Order: sequence, then C-alpha cells, then structure tokens
Amino acid sequence: MTFELPIDEFTRRDWRRSSEGTVRFALIGLGWWTREEAMPAIASSTFCENAVVVSGSSEKAASVADDHDGVTHALTYEEFLDGTAQDAYDAVYIVTPNALHLPYVEAAAEFGKPVLCEKPMEASVERAEQVVNCCTDTGTPLMVAYRMQTDPAVRRTREIIEAGDIGDPVQIHGHMSQPLLDVIPNPDQWRLDPDLTGYGATVMDLGIYPLNTARFVLDADPVSVRAHLRSESTGFGDVPDEHASFELVCDDGTVVSATASQNAQRASHFRIVGTEGEILLEPVFYPDQTRFMTVRRGETTAEVQVPPVNQMTEEFDYFADCLLSDASPYADGAHALTDMRAIAAIYEAGETGETVGVEPATDE
Amino acid sequence: MTFELPIDEFTRRDWRRSSEGTVRFALIGLGWWTREEAMPAIASSTFCENAVVVSGSSEKAASVADDHDGVTHALTYEEFLDGTAQDAYDAVYIVTPNALHLPYVEAAAEFGKPVLCEKPMEASVERAEQVVNCCTDTGTPLMVAYRMQTDPAVRRTREIIEAGDIGDPVQIHGHMSQPLLDVIPNPDQWRLDPDLTGYGATVMDLGIYPLNTARFVLDADPVSVRAHLRSESTGFGDVPDEHASFELVCDDGTVVSATASQNAQRASHFRIVGTEGEILLEPVFYPDQTRFMTVRRGETTAEVQVPPVNQMTEEFDYFADCLLSDASPYADGAHALTDMRAIAAIYEAGETGETVGVEPATDE
Repeated sequence: MTFELPIDEFTRRDWRRSSEGTVRFALIGLGWWTREEAMPAIASSTFCENAVVVSGSSEKAASVADDHDGVTHALTYEEFLDGTAQDAYDAVYIVTPNALHLPYVEAAAEFGKPVLCEKPMEASVERAEQVVNCCTDTGTPLMVAYRMQTDPAVRRTREIIEAGDIGDPVQIHGHMSQPLLDVIPNPDQWRLDPDLTGYGATVMDLGIYPLNTARFVLDADPVSVRAHLRSESTGFGDVPDEHASFELVCDDGTVVSATASQNAQRASHFRIVGTEGEILLEPVFYPDQTRFMTVRRGETTAEVQVPPVNQMTEEFDYFADCLLSDASPYADGAHALTDMRAIAAIYEAGETGETVGVEPATDE
Repeated sequence: MTFELPIDEFTRRDWRRSSEGTVRFALIGLGWWTREEAMPAIASSTFCENAVVVSGSSEKAASVADDHDGVTHALTYEEFLDGTAQDAYDAVYIVTPNALHLPYVEAAAEFGKPVLCEKPMEASVERAEQVVNCCTDTGTPLMVAYRMQTDPAVRRTREIIEAGDIGDPVQIHGHMSQPLLDVIPNPDQWRLDPDLTGYGATVMDLGIYPLNTARFVLDADPVSVRAHLRSESTGFGDVPDEHASFELVCDDGTVVSATASQNAQRASHFRIVGTEGEILLEPVFYPDQTRFMTVRRGETTAEVQVPPVNQMTEEFDYFADCLLSDASPYADGAHALTDMRAIAAIYEAGETGETVGVEPATDE
C-alpha cells in the first residue's frame, strides 16, 4: 500500500468554499483567551474582523477596544443584551464562563446573529439543550468552538484513519494537563467555582479535548463511560476533578483511555492504535506549538514535524467561510450536546464507580 | 533543580553484588521464546549457563541440546519430574504455558532448586497461591520473570520518579499490542486456550506489562480496577480479551490507564505524568529495540536514545547474582501474587462493568 501524506499541503484548508467576504465579530467575554488568542487570531484571519467587544466592565471594554485595531464599539453585557450596536457585527463569539453562555446565545438568536460558542457548550446538559433549542427554533447557525477540529494535524489524522491506513482503530490514548493555579494564580477563578464551571474543573475544560478529538477522528460517538475523579489539593475543594481518568466505549467499538489534570505538568498527547498501524500526535492540544505527527505501519515509522498553525485563525476563518457560503458549520449543537451528555455521564461514573450509558444524540 | 541522568552509566547494573560464580539452568519448556531469546541470553550472560533442556518430546529436547553449546542433558517433562540429572543444574527457568507452571515449581522446590518462573505466575490466583506456598514452605527462592524490572530504561525511570524529579506521579498511560495470529499463525495455540492460558489471552500476556511496570516504577499497588474487554475476530472466540482496556487506581493515588491487544499493530509505550514533569518510554515492552526516553520538566525536554540491551541477559544475571550472593530475588511471589489478584479483578470488572477491589498482598 501507499501511505499518502502530502507534506506541502499538510496545512491546506480542505474546508474552504468561499473566495471573499468579511464577518464582523462581537466578542463576548474579554478574559485572557479573548485578548491574547482570539483577537490576534481574528486580526490575522482572511475572513474575520474584530468589531465589537463586550465585557462586564465598560472600562475594560473600552481599554480592550483601544488596544485592537478595527473595534468600533465597546459594550457592557447589559448593553449587548439590550441589542445595542446590532448593525456593527455579523456574528458573535461567546467566551464567558460556561454557565453564562446561554443568555448571550439567546440574545444573539433573537438578533439573528450566528453563534460561535466556546466549549463546553454550557454548564449542564439541560442548559446546553436550551442553547441548541433556541438556535434551532430561530434558525440561528450555531457552531461550538472545538479548535482541534480545524487543526491541520488533526484533520490529516482523520483522513489517514478514514483511508484505512492504520486498519481499524482499536484503542485511543489521550491526555491534557496544566498547572492551573500557576497559569492563573487565583483560587477564586471561575473554573474552580461549580456555579460557573458546571460539573467540574478538569473534564469540562481539558478532558473534553481528548474526548471530542477522538469522536472527530473516529467519526464515532460514546455509548458508555467509566471514570475515576479525585481532588486533594488546596483550591480544588469545590470540584470533584483536580485529576480525572475516564474511558469511553464508542459505537464503533473503539475504546478511548483519557486523562486530564488541572494540577500537573503542562502536557498533551493523542494516540490511535489500529489493527495495522498507529498515529501519535504530540504535543497536540495546546495552541501555538510545533506539532509532531508519528505514523507507524508494521516496522516503518514516519515522523512529520508541523510548524505552529494558529488554531484560532483556522477556526474563525472556517466558521466565517461557512457563513459566507451558506453552509452549516460543524461542530453543530447536536454534536456538542453528545459531548455534554458524555461529560455528565463521566461525572456520574466518577461519583458512583459504575459504568454509565451515554444517551445517543437525536437529530435536532 | 538539577536533573541527573548519567548517560555513560545508563545501563549500569545497579543491582550487582557478586563478583564471580556460575548458575547452571534447567530450561523447562522449549518454545520459541526459550530457544530464540532465553538460551542466547544465557549464553551471553556473566553468571549463567544453559545446562539442561526439558521438553514434552525427547526428540525436540535432543535437537535443542545439539543446537546450544554447554547443554549436558536433554530431558522429557516426566524425566525432570522424576528427578533425573539433579546434579546437572542449580536453578530452573519455567516457561511452559501458564497452567503448567505449578507442577514444575513443585518439583523444583522438592529438589531444592531456586525457581525463575515466567509471568503470569500461573493460570489462576488459586494456582499462583500454590506456587508461592510451596516455595515458602520449602524455603525455595522464587522470582517471577518480569524482564522490565531489570531493563535499564525502566530502572532509570524509577530512579527519576523516586528522586522527585517529575513531582508526584498523577497519571500513567501504558500500552502493548501485537498481531498474535501473524506472529504465531496457529489458531490452536495455547495462549487462546483458556485451559492453558487461564483467565484470558491479552491481559495475562500483554496487559501485565503496563500493569507491573507501573507498580514497579511507582512502588505502589492497585486497590481497584475497571475494565472493558472484547473479542470479535476469528480465533478469539474462547477468550474474552482480544482487546483490553483497563484502569488501576493505586494506593498512592496514581491512576494507570492501560490498553493491550493481541490483534493490533505491534506497539508499546509507557508514560508517567507528574505534577512537575513527564516521562515517556517508547518503544518499551518488546525486547531488542532501541529505547527512547523523553523527560519533560516545565518547558524543557530531554530525549535519551538507549541502544538495545538484552533484557533477558539482564534478568538472568540479576537472578543468578542474587543466588550467588544469598540475596532474595525480586519480583518475589508476594509481589507477583498481587498482579494475579489484579488480573483476576480486571477480568471480573470486564465481565460485570463494575469497579472491582484488589485484595492487598499479605506478607508470606
């Protein structure tokens, strides 16, 4: 067999449909991710513009607006919800704490603005269902911001698997960890507050990466989960999952062994073992890193080093490309709802020690 | 901090006590592993000699004796059990199918010959307990042949963890797989026959590598397990675990996410994520491979490439060194019995879907 991996086109935008156009974004929530990752990514994109910034504080919004070219309006959350400056933006990017996604989705749907919503979709399955339903009922395009799905290394991995080049996938290992309280040295941060983060701190924020990336490359969904969660250190008393280990049995038979931690060395890897080969991506889940893709078949190993690609630029341009060409963006609400159901099952499995089934997604 | 990894002494025999002496082995069971791995390893060792070969067939025994220098006696199983040629060997290496270890251990114990017994120790917990008891009752030294425990890369990994260089271990990923029916193209082989292999084909034969290596580098024991086992392909109808995924919660809190398969790409890796660093060994569990050890702390990565070390030579010399210096060899029966209990729990967890406790080892 011939293993095809076109090196020169490794980072190609296989999804691209449109040739021109611009989508002006309202950015809702101005934490470090928005300021340091999303806004520079939009600034360097092909189809997107930073247009409106929305924060709890008018001073902060004004300051962020001053720091970024092209921003025409700085709004408070209240002003946004009241419908201020609707003509100044074409779509919204929601990056508030998990439990505060829904009200901005509802407002955007009311205003007829397509929604790019950060993952996880909301703080609970019930609220995530409301996100999906309000978009479905109003015909509002909804994409959940799984940046791995537009990462070229992950898309090439999916193509290799689809082509059968590693045989049938058998087992997946995935891991993502960081020392959260070193990265953000504040014990009162929202990720450690169940009222804002939802079920927990680690599976919701980090474990979702191996979970969703596995679903994406396999084109499969989890049917049952097992999990072990533990919190021991200072600062993690209100969440069950300082450290999380969980296993997903997927509907194609593949088993995903995943771990994540908010109190460990910053690290990430993703590996698929198949009947005839193996693929390792490492590092994989953090942005702005040189990627290494290792592909094995029999005794032969190929290693591809991929320069950093701005994942957020890819993600924003993909979403804009869909809007500009009247295509439905993916990951859609139904896809993301399956993640939320799997995550809820993981927390239940962690609490009970039992295997917990995951309700299949129904077409919305 | 200074990360110490003495490159020139990477393969040093930190266990070495004796300076001279010879241990003559009776090799019981003459499958390909004995002929192609064990006997050449003994031939190239410092302290060991091939002396007696024992097989079901006198022709096969004679043929193997002819092919290897120094072998003085070729015996049938019956002749060995009858006590023939006891003066010609000092210790036994038992490498029969799992369910046939016990009678040869009992005979060796009766003859006062130290035992190196392949892993897993026997086909069931009950029979493994009999192995341990008969050696304890007669004062016979017993070592179970976990060759990873004398692999220099694994020993250096344990030292790095013990020194605290990756902080506290948090999570371990381990995997071992091979296409068994390609490696040994015989559907009637003993590893697929529950009467000879015991609980199953994959956890018993391959899963035991990440399981035991995790215990060894952590110096910890499993307290509970979860598992997902499946058999789908032709040839695997009599065993539950063509593919196996299992998780061990250890008594130090570390969780081990392990997978193994007898019907997948030949592959192996072992990874420890700690609060302050990460170690990856890959490839790790197959003999005669160049090893790569990757150690990360913060943003710094060190990669060490280790030339192949003959694991079996290391293991035989370690065992002989213990015997020649009147030291107790490790892994001992109590250590190996914990593996057997963990493995039995994994098969039970695979059948029930529940979390199953592992009975702690008691000092023999």
